Amino acid sequence: MAKNFSSREENYSQWYNDLVIKADLAENSAVRGCMVIKPYGYAIWEKMQQALDTMFKETGHVNAYFPLFIPKSFFSKEASHVEGFAKECAVVTHYRLKNDPDGKGIIVDPDAKLEEELIVRPTSETIIWDTYRNWIQSYRDLPILVNQWANVVRWEMRTRLFLRTAEFLWQEGHTAHATSDEALAEARQMLDVYTNFAENWMAVPVLKGVKSPNERFAGAIETFCIEAMMQDGKALQAGTSHFLGQNFAKAFDVKFLSKENQLDYVWATSWGVSTRLMGALVMSHSDDNGLVLPPKLAPIQVAIIPIYRKIEQLGPISEKVDVLTKELKAKGISVKFDSRDSYTPGWKFNEYEFKGVPVRVAIGPRDLENGTAEVARRDNLTKEIVPFDRLAEYITDLLDQIQSNLFERARLFRDANTRSADTWEEFIAKLDEGGFVKAHWDGTPETEQKIKDITKATIRLIPLTPDPEAGKCILTGNPSPHRVLFARAY
Amino acid sequence: MAKNFSSREENYSQWYNDLVIKADLAENSAVRGCMVIKPYGYAIWEKMQQALDTMFKETGHVNAYFPLFIPKSFFSKEASHVEGFAKECAVVTHYRLKNDPDGKGIIVDPDAKLEEELIVRPTSETIIWDTYRNWIQSYRDLPILVNQWANVVRWEMRTRLFLRTAEFLWQEGHTAHATSDEALAEARQMLDVYTNFAENWMAVPVLKGVKSPNERFAGAIETFCIEAMMQDGKALQAGTSHFLGQNFAKAFDVKFLSKENQLDYVWATSWGVSTRLMGALVMSHSDDNGLVLPPKLAPIQVAIIPIYRKIEQLGPISEKVDVLTKELKAKGISVKFDSRDSYTPGWKFNEYEFKGVPVRVAIGPRDLENGTAEVARRDNLTKEIVPFDRLAEYITDLLDQIQSNLFERARLFRDANTRSADTWEEFIAKLDEGGFVKAHWDGTPETEQKIKDITKATIRLIPLTPDPEAGKCILTGNPSPHRVLFARAY
Repeated sequence: MAKNFSSREENYSQWYNDLVIKADLAENSAVRGCMVIKPYGYAIWEKMQQALDTMFKETGHVNAYFPLFIPKSFFSKEASHVEGFAKECAVVTHYRLKNDPDGKGIIVDPDAKLEEELIVRPTSETIIWDTYRNWIQSYRDLPILVNQWANVVRWEMRTRLFLRTAEFLWQEGHTAHATSDEALAEARQMLDVYTNFAENWMAVPVLKGVKSPNERFAGAIETFCIEAMMQDGKALQAGTSHFLGQNFAKAFDVKFLSKENQLDYVWATSWGVSTRLMGALVMSHSDDNGLVLPPKLAPIQVAIIPIYRKIEQLGPISEKVDVLTKELKAKGISVKFDSRDSYTPGWKFNEYEFKGVPVRVAIGPRDLENGTAEVARRDNLTKEIVPFDRLAEYITDLLDQIQSNLFERARLFRDANTRSADTWEEFIAKLDEGGFVKAHWDGTPETEQKIKDITKATIRLIPLTPDPEAGKCILTGNPSPHRVLFARAY
Repeated sequence: MAKNFSSREENYSQWYNDLVIKADLAENSAVRGCMVIKPYGYAIWEKMQQALDTMFKETGHVNAYFPLFIPKSFFSKEASHVEGFAKECAVVTHYRLKNDPDGKGIIVDPDAKLEEELIVRPTSETIIWDTYRNWIQSYRDLPILVNQWANVVRWEMRTRLFLRTAEFLWQEGHTAHATSDEALAEARQMLDVYTNFAENWMAVPVLKGVKSPNERFAGAIETFCIEAMMQDGKALQAGTSHFLGQNFAKAFDVKFLSKENQLDYVWATSWGVSTRLMGALVMSHSDDNGLVLPPKLAPIQVAIIPIYRKIEQLGPISEKVDVLTKELKAKGISVKFDSRDSYTPGWKFNEYEFKGVPVRVAIGPRDLENGTAEVARRDNLTKEIVPFDRLAEYITDLLDQIQSNLFERARLFRDANTRSADTWEEFIAKLDEGGFVKAHWDGTPETEQKIKDITKATIRLIPLTPDPEAGKCILTGNPSPHRVLFARAY
């Protein structure tokens, strides 16, 4: 199983790719840049969806569904949006195929050309705001708090499973409000929801902030983001929430009559996370033995493996396991009892270790005699002998411990790899050590661009509430009121 | 609310369309043939998804995700499949837009033409079987029991909300098996799952059968189906499950090594239901007062409306309602207490009636005095005064009653509108009365086609276990061993 599998040290990028494929999370498909999400990977994504969807609904949102296709002209309506999104995309130009008159398979029917080309949605602001125009007349129709679970397509040239694929799955929230304050509060609220999800479900610590203008969403006034650090020290943007002001309302002429009987444009937000989070999950916790999954997102939380030589020994073990399984399931814990005789216990140990199952329980004849079982945890690979009558409680506690241990480990790693730099030389040196670098910046897009061109590092975020500290920009020496966070990023 | 709303009698088709739009289920979008599924409609679809997904998992299936795009050449690989699916479809030919050199918005970049066009999936057999080739080597890899929740596109010329749209949402199961028997059993099992869902969740009675060759899925050996009758007597196919034999395995060269060490092609099934079921749900139960939803799929099962003149009266009512709401929620019943003072009780009564909420509870000051509440059921529009301390139990029972009453009502309607015909004249006459007509057919595709050309009726199904009855084909007089079911259909 773990054969032919690069270590993180050898080649981090290869390690990631090997792991995603060998752990049956996803694979490349016959269509360039599009992945197949395999059942094990999809089961993790379903758990993510479920947790997020519950949080969205608890904060008053409802789901809806908007068209896959967007008329080309829609993209021209919001000036900066078209620059950011309408360039590398899948364009539908025809609506029919026909038999090749030369008998060579099928060809596109030239008579079936669309009058206006359709773009496969790279994001849905335009089609949704075109729809909202008919939904909104007065303040009574607001707020609209809608989310969509959907597939989107961006024609990426260099793709990597989960991290950057032409088609990916995501959710996109699109809300409409009567006031700027309310929209801003919504954008901030959803950033908190994402933070909660990243930290308490994915066990991935994140920093909250706003993007610099260069990194802002095309069409937004302000982009809030959370940034996580991967084990190679690179940053990964784990969620964004945009305050769109009245830009899309103006582009699509969406006005409402206020309580004061004034006609005004509607205020907007949008926010999204995607299957990219699967990449973040893998790269945050996994090791050279395979996947490591936080218990809250693990499709199988506990794998139970019987150890026996003769088939007669399986019966008494199974009886014990039945009791344990019932107890665990009653606590909402997902259990897999793997009693297949076509595989050895050793093979199964490797398998569940490689697949990142948080807790493994082994029970053999000697355990039956002693009234115990062996419990192994995946996060730190330690084992313990536990009396059978304490087992369910022990495992329940252990799952919580593993969840918080993974978070704590990732947090310590991130903090240990976050450094400050005060000069250009120091900045370069610290960047090359990997991780986040806190440095002063003069606040101009030009400087940020120059820094990026030279170092490949970008401003990951400007802290939400920066510590005031007068300083000088590492590149230009111009004054800066506080530090911002730089890193090389996925 | 119910203003400007056609009755079923006046214009059934208009009634349906009005209802879908005015009840906020869905609407047409700016993209021809693509609908927007609005939050209320989507909430019903989510309930359908949840019920089906649970049943799929209980029968051993797992979810996965395959690409939206399919290379054009894939469709040519299965001969009959290409005829059925690859003709009217959305074709992606380019992957980039650019600014119009003439300054008029954006145009398709002629330099960004794809070498091979991509088809937006109309169904995923081809891309999935291309993927399975790498997943399957030996009998140990079988069965594969995978389902996908996805959007698909078929370029329909005449579209109707939910019933026939260019883009729709569905699930498609794609399974792979070592033997023909096992695949057949799987196809039959999923037909039973669909039947269970249609009858026990949607409260829509269905007949099970197989399709005639004319109506068979393109690429299938046998198509199993369930057929429902709408209130205008027309048939609606509510789910299909296909036994695909080895057709796709042969087209995509998917072989496995059997236990007996023989190399053989893999056996396949596919099965699906779509947002079309939303149309079936509306057309089965709803009436001239609006939607009627079966309790098991209603996003709001109980609406509670306080009746008060002075705002001081609301407090004591709310206290009572809190108690009731807690009791109902503890039983898993979804409750909405609508205490908005911006709308009158009368307006709310209409609203929840129109939206098909199964049970409406009204509580006013006199009810408080008497310790009662008024309970109205949507299915038959009757009301009852119920003592407060029996209310939660009464409502719980009532929801069950409504669920079974809707089913029973639809079953009686269907049975009353299922007739037999023995001659051509009788056949025409019975068809024009509406509903299903049981008649003899000589078993040839040509005869079925002729009947369709003349009457617009098709064979909806051949019963799974037909009653043997020698007879003569209504059109040709040729011998027939049993009757089949004809109807005009959606």
